[in-house]
Amino acid sequence: MRRISESTISRLSLYYRTLETLQRENVTTISSGELARSNKFTPAQVRKDLSFFGSFGTRGLGYPVSELKDKIASILGLCKTWNVALVGVGNVGSALVSYKEFQRQGFIIKKIFDNDLRKIGKNHKGILVSDVKNLNMELKENKIEMVIIAVPSSEAQKVVDEVVGAGVRTILNFATTNLKVPENVVLRSVNMAMELEHLSYALANQKR
Amino acid sequence: MRRISESTISRLSLYYRTLETLQRENVTTISSGELARSNKFTPAQVRKDLSFFGSFGTRGLGYPVSELKDKIASILGLCKTWNVALVGVGNVGSALVSYKEFQRQGFIIKKIFDNDLRKIGKNHKGILVSDVKNLNMELKENKIEMVIIAVPSSEAQKVVDEVVGAGVRTILNFATTNLKVPENVVLRSVNMAMELEHLSYALANQKR
Repeated sequence: MRRISESTISRLSLYYRTLETLQRENVTTISSGELARSNKFTPAQVRKDLSFFGSFGTRGLGYPVSELKDKIASILGLCKTWNVALVGVGNVGSALVSYKEFQRQGFIIKKIFDNDLRKIGKNHKGILVSDVKNLNMELKENKIEMVIIAVPSSEAQKVVDEVVGAGVRTILNFATTNLKVPENVVLRSVNMAMELEHLSYALANQKR
Repeated sequence: MRRISESTISRLSLYYRTLETLQRENVTTISSGELARSNKFTPAQVRKDLSFFGSFGTRGLGYPVSELKDKIASILGLCKTWNVALVGVGNVGSALVSYKEFQRQGFIIKKIFDNDLRKIGKNHKGILVSDVKNLNMELKENKIEMVIIAVPSSEAQKVVDEVVGAGVRTILNFATTNLKVPENVVLRSVNMAMELEHLSYALANQKR
């Protein structure tokens, strides 16, 4: 299969959400122009992204909403549920456990880990908090496919190494440090300050 | 000034962090190859991104770390502090108030707003929670330049409209809904589920 870029994946996720909304509103077809407008992309960009699915859609009529949504879901792996584990139930981790859209998109948090004795063995929003010491064993036992890391930066590499050692191939990282993983592991990092840097860029470079 | 793309801005934020680390380690020059390797980009990509700063760096020697870092800081608006307000102190909002890298990068949360009477007037991690009813007035009074929105999706558009009405031009949104802003406002949305979709894409399309 042709490899698609990270920014294309992000745009597909946005198209998917637009198509979901359209489906709820009983809209059956959408043009690349409309799909572009609702996401502030150019129609050419949308057509290029969707050309990934081969010749598809009808000139003048556009794309069938339901079929396009299903194709994108299939590419993004949204046709099944995924077993997710969270390591670190601090402020960020705790927010993620309550994040409703995870469940809705099929990302099921099955296990939570922490190293805080006051948290281990307790129920956190319906999920038992396990001792991070048992990470390797429990990731394997629970067939965890993705791990979200929300531990302090100083502990993040150690946790990543254990997660990789347990055979997990995809990691979402919230620690603000540079982490090393083998070639065959996908590590994606979320840094809230970097998100704000898009705004400060805009303000620092705005037309006056 | 030449406009740079969102993905270039994200890469500049990453280079900035690499350069910070190098500076702490007293490294004085770096090649595009090294900068590429530590961020898993191609050297050609790095050279293209840095060509933004004009002819710069010495062939064979690379770029001067400190100067390159300062140039990127200037582009990203990191040479000054920014007045930030947060609307919504639920799980996500609460995590953001404690996010140390904001302060470090110059993003200072000056005001917090909520509509919950149990929170209003109380101190939240050192910042007084204001009534969201006074949003317009207090954003203006405190010269707020960026607003982070972490309210439930159903309330997000209403808050965005008020923020825009108060003259704020940049918004970081954590609500999982499509929000409308005027052309001259920069709205950036963070959706954690979309981050996980990069991982599910990788798993759904991995070589078997």
